[in-house]
Amino acid sequence: MGTKVLIPLCSDFTEKRDSVCIFGTGDFGRSLGSKLLQSGYSVIFGSRNPGDASLLPRAAEVLGHTEAAQKSSVIIVAVQRDHYGFLEELKDVLQGKILVDVSNNVKVNQYPDSNAEHLAQIVPTATVVKAFNTVSAWALQSGGLDANRQVFVCSDDNKAKQQIMDIVRAIGLTPQDKGSLVAAKEIEDYPLQLYPMWRLPMYMCAGLTVLVFLYCVVNDIVYNAEKKIDVSFLLMITIPNRIFPVVSLMLLGLCYLPGVFAAIIQLYRGTKYSRFPNWLDRWMLCRKQLGLVALSYAFLHAIYTLVIPIRYSVRHRGDMSIISQIKLNKTRILEKPLIWRSDTYLALGILGFFFYIVLGITSLPSVSNAVNWREFRFVQSKLGYLTLLLCTGHAMVYGWDRFLILTRYRWYMPPVYMLSLVIPCTVLVLKLLLIIPCIDSRITKIRQGWERSSSSKKSEAKLKSCSVAF
Amino acid sequence: MGTKVLIPLCSDFTEKRDSVCIFGTGDFGRSLGSKLLQSGYSVIFGSRNPGDASLLPRAAEVLGHTEAAQKSSVIIVAVQRDHYGFLEELKDVLQGKILVDVSNNVKVNQYPDSNAEHLAQIVPTATVVKAFNTVSAWALQSGGLDANRQVFVCSDDNKAKQQIMDIVRAIGLTPQDKGSLVAAKEIEDYPLQLYPMWRLPMYMCAGLTVLVFLYCVVNDIVYNAEKKIDVSFLLMITIPNRIFPVVSLMLLGLCYLPGVFAAIIQLYRGTKYSRFPNWLDRWMLCRKQLGLVALSYAFLHAIYTLVIPIRYSVRHRGDMSIISQIKLNKTRILEKPLIWRSDTYLALGILGFFFYIVLGITSLPSVSNAVNWREFRFVQSKLGYLTLLLCTGHAMVYGWDRFLILTRYRWYMPPVYMLSLVIPCTVLVLKLLLIIPCIDSRITKIRQGWERSSSSKKSEAKLKSCSVAF
Amino acid sequence: MGTKVLIPLCSDFTEKRDSVCIFGTGDFGRSLGSKLLQSGYSVIFGSRNPGDASLLPRAAEVLGHTEAAQKSSVIIVAVQRDHYGFLEELKDVLQGKILVDVSNNVKVNQYPDSNAEHLAQIVPTATVVKAFNTVSAWALQSGGLDANRQVFVCSDDNKAKQQIMDIVRAIGLTPQDKGSLVAAKEIEDYPLQLYPMWRLPMYMCAGLTVLVFLYCVVNDIVYNAEKKIDVSFLLMITIPNRIFPVVSLMLLGLCYLPGVFAAIIQLYRGTKYSRFPNWLDRWMLCRKQLGLVALSYAFLHAIYTLVIPIRYSVRHRGDMSIISQIKLNKTRILEKPLIWRSDTYLALGILGFFFYIVLGITSLPSVSNAVNWREFRFVQSKLGYLTLLLCTGHAMVYGWDRFLILTRYRWYMPPVYMLSLVIPCTVLVLKLLLIIPCIDSRITKIRQGWERSSSSKKSEAKLKSCSVAF
Repeated sequence: MGTKVLIPLCSDFTEKRDSVCIFGTGDFGRSLGSKLLQSGYSVIFGSRNPGDASLLPRAAEVLGHTEAAQKSSVIIVAVQRDHYGFLEELKDVLQGKILVDVSNNVKVNQYPDSNAEHLAQIVPTATVVKAFNTVSAWALQSGGLDANRQVFVCSDDNKAKQQIMDIVRAIGLTPQDKGSLVAAKEIEDYPLQLYPMWRLPMYMCAGLTVLVFLYCVVNDIVYNAEKKIDVSFLLMITIPNRIFPVVSLMLLGLCYLPGVFAAIIQLYRGTKYSRFPNWLDRWMLCRKQLGLVALSYAFLHAIYTLVIPIRYSVRHRGDMSIISQIKLNKTRILEKPLIWRSDTYLALGILGFFFYIVLGITSLPSVSNAVNWREFRFVQSKLGYLTLLLCTGHAMVYGWDRFLILTRYRWYMPPVYMLSLVIPCTVLVLKLLLIIPCIDSRITKIRQGWERSSSSKKSEAKLKSCSVAF
Repeated sequence: MGTKVLIPLCSDFTEKRDSVCIFGTGDFGRSLGSKLLQSGYSVIFGSRNPGDASLLPRAAEVLGHTEAAQKSSVIIVAVQRDHYGFLEELKDVLQGKILVDVSNNVKVNQYPDSNAEHLAQIVPTATVVKAFNTVSAWALQSGGLDANRQVFVCSDDNKAKQQIMDIVRAIGLTPQDKGSLVAAKEIEDYPLQLYPMWRLPMYMCAGLTVLVFLYCVVNDIVYNAEKKIDVSFLLMITIPNRIFPVVSLMLLGLCYLPGVFAAIIQLYRGTKYSRFPNWLDRWMLCRKQLGLVALSYAFLHAIYTLVIPIRYSVRHRGDMSIISQIKLNKTRILEKPLIWRSDTYLALGILGFFFYIVLGITSLPSVSNAVNWREFRFVQSKLGYLTLLLCTGHAMVYGWDRFLILTRYRWYMPPVYMLSLVIPCTVLVLKLLLIIPCIDSRITKIRQGWERSSSSKKSEAKLKSCSVAF
Repeated sequence: MGTKVLIPLCSDFTEKRDSVCIFGTGDFGRSLGSKLLQSGYSVIFGSRNPGDASLLPRAAEVLGHTEAAQKSSVIIVAVQRDHYGFLEELKDVLQGKILVDVSNNVKVNQYPDSNAEHLAQIVPTATVVKAFNTVSAWALQSGGLDANRQVFVCSDDNKAKQQIMDIVRAIGLTPQDKGSLVAAKEIEDYPLQLYPMWRLPMYMCAGLTVLVFLYCVVNDIVYNAEKKIDVSFLLMITIPNRIFPVVSLMLLGLCYLPGVFAAIIQLYRGTKYSRFPNWLDRWMLCRKQLGLVALSYAFLHAIYTLVIPIRYSVRHRGDMSIISQIKLNKTRILEKPLIWRSDTYLALGILGFFFYIVLGITSLPSVSNAVNWREFRFVQSKLGYLTLLLCTGHAMVYGWDRFLILTRYRWYMPPVYMLSLVIPCTVLVLKLLLIIPCIDSRITKIRQGWERSSSSKKSEAKLKSCSVAF
């Protein structure tokens, strides 16, 4: 029989349909049952009190657990883990059946083992398959699944897994084979997460934004308020457009800093076979997200900059400047260095922004999956540093010689663009040192597995010290 | 033997190649044959008159149907469904062979059953696999398949399916397992569709665009023409840049309106177990496309706005304003409220546009596949309403107090931006009502499967009434 | 046993773990070993001198090759192809084992056969699976695999392949079934390539950029330098913003030119069953990349144009113009045709850019995989020609009647925008000819497999001449 059981071979498929049994008449069970009925399966619900089945789809049969289980080789267990107990008594009738665990937990690591593995221990005579936990009852019913249609499936039995994957396909979802039942833990944690990799970058970004915002408010608004000038309207565009580029450049620097740290640590330790400190590991893992947050700020900076000539206050200031030139009969002359400065920082900014966007596009899952490791590194490393260089240059040329003009240092605070240069310049200088040929070749050797001191004695000691690692 | 049949085990694979038989010497058969030959298979064509084989690749053998079928375990049936009849006579020779149905229909639902199932009925002794119908002869030959390389494969026999999937891979295409042969219907309909989900949003967008265009033409051009002023040049940029934001905002509202309707219906009926009206179902299914159309209009609005200062007429008007100020010796003073208005609506617009784009990016298939249901709902719902709020605010601040100035109501027609606010404001007000705690908790309960009146008697009646559903 | 071997069935999985043997204690072997240990496998290294194993993870066993191989059914061969020789002596102990070939070559086509097939020839008693060659030791260790997690797996034995795919999943990577062992060649070449499809478009783009740059430098800077006017500052923005649109339009034309050539060739030859010249084939295969390069130049052109009003020199020139108007008391009047010209070329440019971007988005792998062949052709062909038409119109209206003004022909050189029109206009004119009904129907017939002269004699001759092809 095998998978044939599931497949309506005659075109008039209502006559002889494959049957699926569902234990549990809760919302998820009902939704899944309706969907299966629509897809041509016959559905038998197993319930404690089969008489009270008012909410179940009419076309489904409702029986006691034992009778229901006997009618199908596939049993979907749509009850909470706490109530798995009753299955123990059904051991005999469940012998050789496929039990599908669809449960989710309320929080990560709620139990030491996964629900599916727990189920397999309770009913060792049945084959357990984990599936369907990534779709919600709401998603099943609303039909318009524009979201994730993926259903992760895992089991220790490949045949049972295939059979469940066929059911998944039949109701219009996409099964994804996740291997053996040990993967159940990961599958159960999956629906609970809310952008875990984005948390650290978001905190970094929010922190920097607040700091730079306060700095700008003190530097601009409070400073002017002191002099009885109300420039609070700067809050809407001028100050955001100072925060976005500054934080974006800092974040881009922070995106490449951990890589430089890692190289220095490896160089210092003379080996790559020792773990990085935990904070560095976490930092390195969220570099992609860090880069994308930086890109979104750069995007906002670009648009905020492009609307400048449309702003009423800017147009008014321009008009006033012309009128005063005429009234004073004193025309400002065109200064060549200013042309060079203006055009250069704009050009650097545009090119930097362009490569920023290319980096962002290549980080899209479907694009990065289409390139090999060599191509990915080429883009993310070569193009990444080029972007950092261009953006740092953009900020520097924007500053030009202003850092020499002491009147700009209001209350001894340097202009905010100068602060933004600290991290990227550090990264670029360190990187420059690291690509000096003799240092670079050393790092390459270390990354290919070479160790500075592999005398058996020393390494013996090292092995002991890192025996905790495994 | 099994899959081994297909695999050249010796490195010198020209010596002993796997053979594939193709019934039918039409364009698709020939193209597939050439491709298979290039990939190292030996190809035997089965033809009614094997003598006339002028167009077939030289390296292929051409035989009668029976002789050809005997030479290979895989037979690709590249003939039209209408001519499947001749296969009935070959029943004996086709016993145990794998028949690959590659056919497509001219229109959806041309026949009651799928071609592949029809084939399986005609030759019940063979195993039927549906495949290759999604690629065209032209795509196979032109080689440059930058398009879809996916080949949907389905069959009731897993072994045969695997074997055909190996052939698909061998000629450089990507097989996708679609389960059992009942999926053939869907697979055959697939190549016939032309953006079916985009149709409704496109009609809505086109309708609104025409209406708003006519409104603007009357309001601006005809109104001025009446006064002998020719402003027809507004047609190029000014009027489009009025249509785009207005229609975009309306569409964004229409994107969230059905969700609000659905909640109200569920609240009113006190259950989620009854179907929505058909029009609501269709509307809800195309919300993603609606949002993307709205985004594209928002994008056009953004660029049309950014080019404003480059336009000759705008620059000229600016110059005239300065010159007249000087001539009249009457300088306009900087008005603080106007600064706030100008900067606020620009800032709101930019932020709204930014989140708009984030929504657009997360709707890319590869991005939405990488997030779980919770994350997807977070972005599409929370971020979606934030976007709607920002864009509505953008339009409101843009209007400012102009709705009070009666001279703006040309021919009693309110300015067009006011029209754009109707739908989004309705949605926002309704949503606001729906998230009042007591109402929100009721909806949540309903969506978790609770029903207002589940007394067995009432539900009995209900079950009868919706028995048509299943 | 089957796949069960690999799966820890008891929840306390440290007690009885599946074992994997690794031959070779180099960097890749060590990294893979560590990763496997972390994922709960027990790892046995097979080494020539098991005593010196200082760098290996402590939790792993290190034995001689024979003893190690006896301990596991899966043996990962992490040694270079040149050293495969020693495996011949282990033939007996490797009988029935799964050998995983993880090797890569230094350059494409280094050996006539793939390493995996070579391994299968050396140890014919074992089952060879190709896997893991697409991940680097560094990627395995750094953990943060934001890059490609795909591992291509191929083998002639499906069961062995499944087993290795389970191991791949267990260590957090995504296996992709590439079929039988003949795919090993392709898999081994994959990590070596560096954007092969982008090379030709990049060369074309670089060549055109240099030519147009030189043309502009001579036309603008040298011409003015001759007259003792230093306009070298044009180099930063003005000249790039002349190069980008010109080259972008040329590339867009070059993107559609080969398709037109192909149609003409087919029309001339009266058949589609003869190969295109090699250069045309290569050109046609990189059209997507060509289009994306053109899009990136168009994007740069758009931003360079939008920053125009922010540029210091532009603002200064604007001020001067107003001041001189006042001084001379001679106000420039608003010229209607100039309004039309300015607004029309901006509108055409924006719409062209918009469709350009739509084309770019639909070429993202995940988007183009979600559409069928008909939808893809609709976008790439219909929308593509619309884009070309709009952009060509944009350049033409930009030029307006300037091509009549002879003083613009500095040193008899036509303005650069005129050069950009040559290719797209040629394409559009040829395309216009090709969609004349009688010609179009002929091409359609040819593409459906029709031939002008299929008399057996002529085709006989043809078959001989192209017998080399297969």
